Amino acid sequence: MKNLRVGLAQINVTVGDLKGNAEKIKNYINLAKEKGCDIVAFPELALTGYPPEDLLLKPSFIEENLRQIKKLTDASKDIISIVGFVDKEEDIYNAAAIIYDGQIVDVYHKNYLPNYSVFDENRYFQKGNKITLINIEGYKIGVSICEDIWYPENPINIQAIEGAELVININASPYHIGKIKYREEMVKVRSKDNTTAIAYINMVGGQDELVFDGSSFVTMPDGSFLIKAPPYEENLFIADIDLDSVFRNQLKDNRLRNLRASYKRENKVKEIFLNYKIKEKKDKPPQYIVLDYKEVQLIYEALKTGLRDYIKKNDFQKVVIGLSGGIDSSLTATIAVDALGKENVKGVIMPSQFTSKESIEDAQQLAKNLEIETFVISISDIFDLYMQKLKPIFKDLPWNHTEENLQARIRGNILMALSNKFGWIVLATGNKSEMSVGYATLYGDMVGGFAVLKDVLKTRVYELAEYRNSISPVIPQRVLEKPPSAELRPGQTDEEELAPYPILDEIIRLYIEEDIPAVEISTKYGIDKDLVKKIVRMIDKNEYKRRQAPIGIKITERAFGKDRRMPITNKFDEFTIIDE
Amino acid sequence: MKNLRVGLAQINVTVGDLKGNAEKIKNYINLAKEKGCDIVAFPELALTGYPPEDLLLKPSFIEENLRQIKKLTDASKDIISIVGFVDKEEDIYNAAAIIYDGQIVDVYHKNYLPNYSVFDENRYFQKGNKITLINIEGYKIGVSICEDIWYPENPINIQAIEGAELVININASPYHIGKIKYREEMVKVRSKDNTTAIAYINMVGGQDELVFDGSSFVTMPDGSFLIKAPPYEENLFIADIDLDSVFRNQLKDNRLRNLRASYKRENKVKEIFLNYKIKEKKDKPPQYIVLDYKEVQLIYEALKTGLRDYIKKNDFQKVVIGLSGGIDSSLTATIAVDALGKENVKGVIMPSQFTSKESIEDAQQLAKNLEIETFVISISDIFDLYMQKLKPIFKDLPWNHTEENLQARIRGNILMALSNKFGWIVLATGNKSEMSVGYATLYGDMVGGFAVLKDVLKTRVYELAEYRNSISPVIPQRVLEKPPSAELRPGQTDEEELAPYPILDEIIRLYIEEDIPAVEISTKYGIDKDLVKKIVRMIDKNEYKRRQAPIGIKITERAFGKDRRMPITNKFDEFTIIDE
Repeated sequence: MKNLRVGLAQINVTVGDLKGNAEKIKNYINLAKEKGCDIVAFPELALTGYPPEDLLLKPSFIEENLRQIKKLTDASKDIISIVGFVDKEEDIYNAAAIIYDGQIVDVYHKNYLPNYSVFDENRYFQKGNKITLINIEGYKIGVSICEDIWYPENPINIQAIEGAELVININASPYHIGKIKYREEMVKVRSKDNTTAIAYINMVGGQDELVFDGSSFVTMPDGSFLIKAPPYEENLFIADIDLDSVFRNQLKDNRLRNLRASYKRENKVKEIFLNYKIKEKKDKPPQYIVLDYKEVQLIYEALKTGLRDYIKKNDFQKVVIGLSGGIDSSLTATIAVDALGKENVKGVIMPSQFTSKESIEDAQQLAKNLEIETFVISISDIFDLYMQKLKPIFKDLPWNHTEENLQARIRGNILMALSNKFGWIVLATGNKSEMSVGYATLYGDMVGGFAVLKDVLKTRVYELAEYRNSISPVIPQRVLEKPPSAELRPGQTDEEELAPYPILDEIIRLYIEEDIPAVEISTKYGIDKDLVKKIVRMIDKNEYKRRQAPIGIKITERAFGKDRRMPITNKFDEFTIIDE
Repeated sequence: MKNLRVGLAQINVTVGDLKGNAEKIKNYINLAKEKGCDIVAFPELALTGYPPEDLLLKPSFIEENLRQIKKLTDASKDIISIVGFVDKEEDIYNAAAIIYDGQIVDVYHKNYLPNYSVFDENRYFQKGNKITLINIEGYKIGVSICEDIWYPENPINIQAIEGAELVININASPYHIGKIKYREEMVKVRSKDNTTAIAYINMVGGQDELVFDGSSFVTMPDGSFLIKAPPYEENLFIADIDLDSVFRNQLKDNRLRNLRASYKRENKVKEIFLNYKIKEKKDKPPQYIVLDYKEVQLIYEALKTGLRDYIKKNDFQKVVIGLSGGIDSSLTATIAVDALGKENVKGVIMPSQFTSKESIEDAQQLAKNLEIETFVISISDIFDLYMQKLKPIFKDLPWNHTEENLQARIRGNILMALSNKFGWIVLATGNKSEMSVGYATLYGDMVGGFAVLKDVLKTRVYELAEYRNSISPVIPQRVLEKPPSAELRPGQTDEEELAPYPILDEIIRLYIEEDIPAVEISTKYGIDKDLVKKIVRMIDKNEYKRRQAPIGIKITERAFGKDRRMPITNKFDEFTIIDE
């Protein structure tokens, strides 16, 4: 029995770092050779990083990417490498180079280009129309890229009919809740439907709003996993695939036999014959079968990874966080410590006359538990001085959100001053519930380079905090129990001003993530119509704030950012239609 | 001689305001009837406003748009109306309804969907594949939408072969420098090539980053304008088109005769026969032949229109602007007064210890010239108090950009406090040169809901100021002459810190707007390599600031915003490639 040894290079690359990425790819090719791999496959656009966005409009970027892919041919003796890069003919393509024996022997162009959600591939790429197979010793290996595998028909169906015992699908598939399971189930079905093994290689690491979770795997024609790589881990994972057994299964598959009987090869099929001899295997690769993770753990790791990579890839080292004693800043600081190390996280406590003693204690206790350096700067007298300067204009107008926002903005200024002086990046601590309804101060608590919890609903903030505390209790229990408050005036609580968080979050989830018409949220989901109206209108009216918010990590099917492109100037109001 | 009277409804609609837009469309249909029009045509997506962006993902939005288009049929007796809306089958389409005699007699689906620059139409729409002709008394009128006319082949070529004497092309074509001329020249060529009249109807008004300039027109087969509507004016413009003369011209066109000889109608051609009798004309419509505007005037009007509509369509009335005595804030305030009226513009002068006497005088003189209410609030003592509070942490670290940014942020806070207390929207005053290199303080002078000059290079700021002063001298002459300075420390000037503005702007223009490789900017355009390197790196590194900037009006081929989608995390550096 001669198994094909496939290396799944689940690597973490950086957008634009063509030279660095090429270097990493080369090292992994060499590592795969050492480990006796016959083939090593890299993620989609591994060479450029994903998504390169408008870098793809720069001729110099495309050219350098071509130069680097050619340089990789040096590394590819005795191994077949499949590397994601940008190909250029008259147009550009999201492509996979098949590199062997010092040459790029063929290039596959992605057939299906996603242009929804965070994806804009039609903006840049032409779609390919070839279907590629590699022939080694009579075995056939199909190649495809990401979106291609989501379609039950081509290219995988043709590849199976053509006799592919294995299809290699290279990906840059970002995480969101439920995605890993969804993706695995889909690929299992493809494996079964087409009686073929599938090696699914995904990128790992953070890039701006996106986190690629890795979670690469190999499925077999019976729908089982041959290997399953752990999420968020950069490494080479190896699978020995018994192609003869797949071949025998195909012979027994009546559907495939029927399809083959009437099949005529079309021009679009490209079979590449490689003069490669599958290596004799002396050892067995380790078995990576990873248990299913709980979703809360996957979210936590996504946030850690996204934060860590944003900081490191942007050449920062330390972060600074305003600690209010509330749950959001507590969780943000905890994730930061887990991602970056306690020596790289600074806390600032900035009490005003409205800050409770308990809040200060809780912030200090958290800092103590996390062992992070913390500064205390009171903002009361700065606030008073502003008010004194504004008095001649404000006269006797009553206190309103002006004075509340001002406090948040003074804190923002202090954080930014520390950031500027010491080169620490400010982390914003706002969550998705706040970002949705605009319950946050622009240039105040929204200050920051990165917003870790931007896509995390408040109820989920609590779940994450509880999950983290179950590992080691760092967030003080009182923080988890007291009613959330912005503490910008006496007696304020979030839930009195907005709605109970479980209800608020449900409205947000239905309206933002599922596009349920506002009216149906009350009629079909039994939530009070006036409350839905109030919340939906707050969501719609606060687009301008979100547009100036720092970016944050996407963890849901619809995050704020590239994922949701709403006009600011927007008079659509479902309630006026209905009330008409 | 029976002319066809076509009404070009160059209207200003609001995204999402389906009911309000439908009302306006109905009023214009009635007006066109009064004026004796046979046909009235409205802009692309006139019913929804353009671009509706992710509103298109909301089922309730699509449904209400369908309900409103059906309601419009009531208005359409004795006139043929062509109205842009969103059609829905299994998918949705960017569509034109042909409404006549109480019915939607046909719907055309846009064949070519732009998915570049600010456009994302592949994200939402399927493309159509029909080619539509309306037949009235044997005359044929082609219908198409925007992008369709940019392709020399279909649909216009088929429409001409089929015998269209007139093609109506409805648009939502945003302004940028040079665009009006470019568009006119292109359509003239289409008219000549196809020996057909073309009625080009464009939207007018501002929508977030975009300004639609109107500038609708009718071209004749000889490449002349029959009418040319003024830019930025909302109105119904009327043209009497002599279809018989077009018909005679087509008979004499050898190219067309050749094409017709070998032509076979395909399924995709849809000819709609309307039982409509062209009205006898008793009067002549006014002749709108607009002279060419100077580009500086077109830019100025674009900025005025964009600002006015952003403010009004978002239900604001008054704006507040920090007046530094510099050129940017002076021009911004002037445009605001021209757009909104002096009673709706408030100035705030916020001197520090580094503010020169001249700057305060200049700001005050400007306010006096503009006759706007102005407040003076010194920031010195607030700055000192912050520094005192930070002293225990900063210790004896030297003055750097921290202290400079802090001053800008105190000003930002004061502007936002006034905004919050009085409901005035803050206008940011930064220009494109600053936004490019990040020579601006995030949460400081970048504060604001709208940035009028965001896409205006500094050298162009001066041109605009001079143009405006040529109408009436409102900006003090000294403002135009003194060296620009942020005045955040003694003796600071922009050009010493950056580069002389004419050179800086040329680098920005080549790098941002033309995607010229950085290295070529020095080799081919003769600009010092080290300076190019410094500026290009500043541009690349400041993406994070731009991402949190207020939106502003696009006036160039490549503006910051939806038009330029760069990753923040981005290690691409052309100079490391070269220096390697």
